[in-house]
Amino acid sequence: MVPLPFSRDEYVSRLAKIRKEMSKRGLDLLIVNDVANQHYITAYDGWSFYTPQVVIVPPAGEPVWIGRAMDAAGGKLTVWMRPENVVGFPEDHVQASDRHPMDWIGRWIAEKGWGQGRIGVELEAYYYSPKAHARLTAAMPNASFIDADLLVNWIRAVKSPAEIAYLRRAAQLAEAAVKTAYRVIAPGIRECDAVGAIQAAQYGALADHAGDITALPPTILAGENASAPHLMWSERKFAEGETVALELAGACRHYTAGLARTMQLGAKPAKVAKVEAAVLEGMEAVLATAAPGKLAHDVEAAWRGTIARHGYKKESRIGYSIGVAYPPDWGEHTISLRQGDATVLVPGQVLHAILGMWMDGWGIEISETLLVTEDGCEPLAKMPREIYVKN
Amino acid sequence: MVPLPFSRDEYVSRLAKIRKEMSKRGLDLLIVNDVANQHYITAYDGWSFYTPQVVIVPPAGEPVWIGRAMDAAGGKLTVWMRPENVVGFPEDHVQASDRHPMDWIGRWIAEKGWGQGRIGVELEAYYYSPKAHARLTAAMPNASFIDADLLVNWIRAVKSPAEIAYLRRAAQLAEAAVKTAYRVIAPGIRECDAVGAIQAAQYGALADHAGDITALPPTILAGENASAPHLMWSERKFAEGETVALELAGACRHYTAGLARTMQLGAKPAKVAKVEAAVLEGMEAVLATAAPGKLAHDVEAAWRGTIARHGYKKESRIGYSIGVAYPPDWGEHTISLRQGDATVLVPGQVLHAILGMWMDGWGIEISETLLVTEDGCEPLAKMPREIYVKN
Repeated sequence: MVPLPFSRDEYVSRLAKIRKEMSKRGLDLLIVNDVANQHYITAYDGWSFYTPQVVIVPPAGEPVWIGRAMDAAGGKLTVWMRPENVVGFPEDHVQASDRHPMDWIGRWIAEKGWGQGRIGVELEAYYYSPKAHARLTAAMPNASFIDADLLVNWIRAVKSPAEIAYLRRAAQLAEAAVKTAYRVIAPGIRECDAVGAIQAAQYGALADHAGDITALPPTILAGENASAPHLMWSERKFAEGETVALELAGACRHYTAGLARTMQLGAKPAKVAKVEAAVLEGMEAVLATAAPGKLAHDVEAAWRGTIARHGYKKESRIGYSIGVAYPPDWGEHTISLRQGDATVLVPGQVLHAILGMWMDGWGIEISETLLVTEDGCEPLAKMPREIYVKN
Repeated sequence: MVPLPFSRDEYVSRLAKIRKEMSKRGLDLLIVNDVANQHYITAYDGWSFYTPQVVIVPPAGEPVWIGRAMDAAGGKLTVWMRPENVVGFPEDHVQASDRHPMDWIGRWIAEKGWGQGRIGVELEAYYYSPKAHARLTAAMPNASFIDADLLVNWIRAVKSPAEIAYLRRAAQLAEAAVKTAYRVIAPGIRECDAVGAIQAAQYGALADHAGDITALPPTILAGENASAPHLMWSERKFAEGETVALELAGACRHYTAGLARTMQLGAKPAKVAKVEAAVLEGMEAVLATAAPGKLAHDVEAAWRGTIARHGYKKESRIGYSIGVAYPPDWGEHTISLRQGDATVLVPGQVLHAILGMWMDGWGIEISETLLVTEDGCEPLAKMPREIYVKN
């Protein structure tokens, strides 16, 4: 057996919170399609979500994982439930044109006696397709299906001490990734070689815990790519004078802490220093504002007011709830730091505040993964935020 | 501008094939939701698919990419189309509870005059959710929506010479990854450190071309994990006597070649050698069978007959079409090497034949990425297939 990341009590407590919310919404059954939510509920961990995979939360008893037959073996090695609650659909249903795994899964649920009443299902989960939903619901004609998108995510928004411990380790891995970037990136070095070194640090920098795959791969934006976020690396070489934005992270048992920093190859141009000053002051405003009782949009407003005094503005949100994550996203899709988000901050929430300014042909990114504490907030990584100048 | 991976002619030719198939199916418009298909059609390349993103193939003219406003900048840097065919939906639609990007995208399509007739949409694309589909279709009440799942994938199944050139480079990266694994994996080494070294080789092993992220991360199965495929790495240390199955790949401009090999730490047990002999002979049967005019299931039958003579059987399929890929899957979901798949093999198809035998507590994997040639097939990597014994 693979060691569980958390005690059984932690899983039992998660289940109780989910059932309380199910009850509030009048749900008889919950079908969980989001892979991070599946891991949160069961501890299942495998790269098997390229075929349909669900976790079922029945009214009582253990949850049930259902996925590809080949992967049920890995299910039994990783989950906390009894082996009979790990179920495989037949291999001849994998990517076949004449049958669908959800036909089988829907029938299995119906045969369990759970195929009626009000069934919650996550209608915006990655890897849950319109076809999968159509086939699943067709197999249970006596049920009504209710959107349960984000039901589990909102429970995830407040972290337990054990979860925070993993996030602290994740932040250490993220620091190691940034330090590695500072060390290896230099004029003449290829982007792809820098990314290789950074990922090795993301996985190996802690003595006692492996780093996991981060939900977004390392993003390193320099040269012509620096005016746009989210582009991928290439064989391009860094050049003297470039401002290099690093959007990195660390992940420990899939708990992910984001950490963005910026480095300058050679002397820092005045225009870069000007934006940097605004962003650093903006981050101070974010850190001074995020505290229990404040609203998510108060944090964004503090940032917006600060950069406005410097003559800048930014359209997009500046942060989001972060925690357990699988590709393609480490955001939890609940709290956003932006205008109109009136979520009340409470201790135990963890937010990735990411301040990216994309100028004409270059950009700066500085971020912190913040834990909301009893009386304010704490950045989980401990690293200078100034642009790292490498001469 | 980021250099295009292919000439404009190649994109024009792809578009012509897609339109021919659209016409055959009576489709007035095609909405492409699959990220690999989007890249195939437009060359767009960014990690932005955690919010809705579509490519639209209208009856005439260039395709249109629509994604998050922030990512339109990256779109303009990577696609072959004119900038006006890269469209961003507003930032306030990102992961918001009161509006959905597909509301905006659907309205945009309707305002273009394309919101009626028969619209093809990929109903089983990763990252295309039931909610996204509901919102998109609600915004175009005058259209009828037709499942176009795999329409583009089937066109991708036969590769052009330029695509095969990338796949050959991908196979070189995959070889480098396997050789790195052979070099670094040893008793006492942690799995996470081995994965770091392997990924660095996957990205950096070629002098002229960066390696891209592979759609599945490295899978290294040893110790207790070896009885199950698709589990993730940990801080566990390899131990003397272990049989280590390596399911690796290389990716060049997202063209992906899979390559699985197995290594043995210390003397090879007789039971391992016995399964190895069956698998090696099975691979010879696969290579001798895959040729133009044969059917996909002929290849599987050759394998099945061979291992049956050794006293083994295997439930799952043994291979699939492979090519341009984004997480979570490098398979193209078209051709499968399994019973009942009567696809006729033709030159230019590329198949990942992966022979994995999962025994009680250990496993062997050996694979080849095969190009179907004029008179047979050719494995793109050139590496001994025998278990690599490391003493």
